[in-house]
Amino acid sequence: MLTVLSVDRAREEIISSLRGWSAKVENVSLKNAPGRVTSGDIFAPETLPPFPRSTMDGFAVCSADTFGASEELPAILSLRGNILMGQKPPGPIFPGEAMSIPTGGMLPVGSDSVAMIEYCELLGNNVAVFRPVAPLENTIQPGDDFKSGDLLFPAGHYLRPQDIGILAAQGIMQLSVIARPQVKIFSTGDEIVPPERQPEPGQVRDVNSYLLASQVQESGGEPVYGGIIPDRQESLSSALEQALEDDVDMVLVSGGSSVGTRDVAIDAINALPGEGVLFHGVAMRPGKPLLYGKSKGKPIFGLSGNPVSAMFGFILFVKPALRLMCGLSPLAPFTPTVEALLLTNIASPGGREDYVRVSLEYACEDKKVKEKGEILWARPVYGGPGLLHTVVQGDGYIVIPRDVEGLDEGSRVKVFLF
Amino acid sequence: MLTVLSVDRAREEIISSLRGWSAKVENVSLKNAPGRVTSGDIFAPETLPPFPRSTMDGFAVCSADTFGASEELPAILSLRGNILMGQKPPGPIFPGEAMSIPTGGMLPVGSDSVAMIEYCELLGNNVAVFRPVAPLENTIQPGDDFKSGDLLFPAGHYLRPQDIGILAAQGIMQLSVIARPQVKIFSTGDEIVPPERQPEPGQVRDVNSYLLASQVQESGGEPVYGGIIPDRQESLSSALEQALEDDVDMVLVSGGSSVGTRDVAIDAINALPGEGVLFHGVAMRPGKPLLYGKSKGKPIFGLSGNPVSAMFGFILFVKPALRLMCGLSPLAPFTPTVEALLLTNIASPGGREDYVRVSLEYACEDKKVKEKGEILWARPVYGGPGLLHTVVQGDGYIVIPRDVEGLDEGSRVKVFLF
Repeated sequence: MLTVLSVDRAREEIISSLRGWSAKVENVSLKNAPGRVTSGDIFAPETLPPFPRSTMDGFAVCSADTFGASEELPAILSLRGNILMGQKPPGPIFPGEAMSIPTGGMLPVGSDSVAMIEYCELLGNNVAVFRPVAPLENTIQPGDDFKSGDLLFPAGHYLRPQDIGILAAQGIMQLSVIARPQVKIFSTGDEIVPPERQPEPGQVRDVNSYLLASQVQESGGEPVYGGIIPDRQESLSSALEQALEDDVDMVLVSGGSSVGTRDVAIDAINALPGEGVLFHGVAMRPGKPLLYGKSKGKPIFGLSGNPVSAMFGFILFVKPALRLMCGLSPLAPFTPTVEALLLTNIASPGGREDYVRVSLEYACEDKKVKEKGEILWARPVYGGPGLLHTVVQGDGYIVIPRDVEGLDEGSRVKVFLF
Repeated sequence: MLTVLSVDRAREEIISSLRGWSAKVENVSLKNAPGRVTSGDIFAPETLPPFPRSTMDGFAVCSADTFGASEELPAILSLRGNILMGQKPPGPIFPGEAMSIPTGGMLPVGSDSVAMIEYCELLGNNVAVFRPVAPLENTIQPGDDFKSGDLLFPAGHYLRPQDIGILAAQGIMQLSVIARPQVKIFSTGDEIVPPERQPEPGQVRDVNSYLLASQVQESGGEPVYGGIIPDRQESLSSALEQALEDDVDMVLVSGGSSVGTRDVAIDAINALPGEGVLFHGVAMRPGKPLLYGKSKGKPIFGLSGNPVSAMFGFILFVKPALRLMCGLSPLAPFTPTVEALLLTNIASPGGREDYVRVSLEYACEDKKVKEKGEILWARPVYGGPGLLHTVVQGDGYIVIPRDVEGLDEGSRVKVFLF
């Protein structure tokens, strides 16, 4: 219980404790589906395109008629009519015939390709084609995009704009998605007052409820403000019990950075029915006092009262849990980062993962290494975990592993963007 | 008018045509502020922290009293009382005295530092301190985070969770942000039917309205569905006129991939009061037939009818314009990308920028280069601009410059994630 876990180990424990989570589902209209996650496999009801289409303005032809055509000796075809956008062709064509067709138009029966208008000339009721056309050239054929029955998206797919596009193309106007997990957020501490109130000496405003709610929202959850709870076990216990009875999927409690108040949170979670506290303490900076437990199958996180530690606790532990509860894989498959060079040496205590906030700049006058081209520099933003300006001025963070005691100026670093 | 611009040049033209755009502003509550953009500079009304705070559990002391303290010869201080969370200290301390203090507690007058509880022992009414404490040690002082009058955020700042946190800390419960630009979206084409309708032969469903609306939303704008317009100048002109009279900030028209319909869009935009068409045609693949104009100061984009071309037209041209209208810098300061190795050769026609869709994979059996560790591979997804599966199966895209005719297998590439 009192061993301090590594960041990876702690994250694995959280993820494995939530395997088999059964998410709620809901129906949404296509217009409200962007950014949601599919709750089941979605198969193509239709074949797309449903008919052969032209990808060029020109003439629908039988390709065999054009073989050997040249500037000197064009293929002369007889014009059978004009195909209009959005309409069936006026009839089939037979060898020796052509029909004019616009980009996107439907090919007539008997035609297997389109001669581009640039290589054709209209001569009365005939069309001269000056270049040979290969079978299927300048067309897309039924099923080239999707065939009826194809898997469009597996369950757990995050719907991007192009995915909304294909759903529209398939006429899927309603779909079932994972309901956004409801996350109840409490701040604890006798010194905390709601931000709309003017604090008395010794009091500070509730930052974490707003910071965490904003992170929950960004990660696909729905924040539910639980308010401020005094640092007493019975207050916290009854607040947690109430939250778990409500339709809430996860609880975040921030506060309790001092030894006594941490014990209050541990006792309160252990007093609930169910698994209780699964671990506390992670070898990282900032954010060491992470606490994780479960009751009635629902995850409960105890985050630091320090806003910066709470924020990193969210990024590293709550977000993967929330992704999993949203139906996604807990860790994003491809984490977007930027590469930068370190502007100064960084010392790190070692023994725990160090999350160093940095600001990024392209051209800085005091950089010592002069290099050609645009180079991105990372400048550490120093300050303790209680100081918000380190994350407000920061553009992201770099990770210094447990067994590394610092990084040299000029080192190439991977910056995780905020 | 008929010159084909490079991607960069076209983007510059768009951006410079919108410099000085005067955005609408609105007030939002702090809870609704995440993801919004500040409309003016925001200064700190208060100094934070407002009083000196302890960052540790321990005893507030006068640091000078502890100089030279050791395990053998501790400093013995007289305990003057206990500081409670959220309350003023019960009084000041004088040299030779100490007060117990929790993490986050308010330091008493006369104390300049905190001795950690781990290095102290309570002996009746005295406290033995076994290690010297430096002035300010284990404290944060008023203004360490922000001083009253500090610039918190300049105008045009995108509000992240930590920024919401600092606004809460400052008690700023309402703020003025840039209103989301209203973007009216039209699809043109006689072959287009609403997605809820079953298409007849020759007809296809409207994909682009839904795809583009989803992109608008993702980029901070508010989509307004304008519906489907027939391919005739008078229909398009009157729809555009109506849109510009409404409270709309930008218009997107997709369709008109054939020569005739492109001319319809050009004529319709030129018939409106104001600047008319500023350019059309961009040297890129997919997405060549981009059309840009303005009327009454409002930007109008003509995008390809091909969904993939329309999507890239949005990413490369509409999004920067929308960012600018949202009060942000048009191009994201740090573009998050992932690095990957190319799994196959790619040929590119040259003469225009080529946006090649790729899917990403970590471990692929048919990779020819075996390397240790996790390497990300990019696999091109082939298919014309009319085929949505290239972007649905793709995880992102790579850019092949105009003067490069292809890339070799194994090349290191930068992948822009969808």
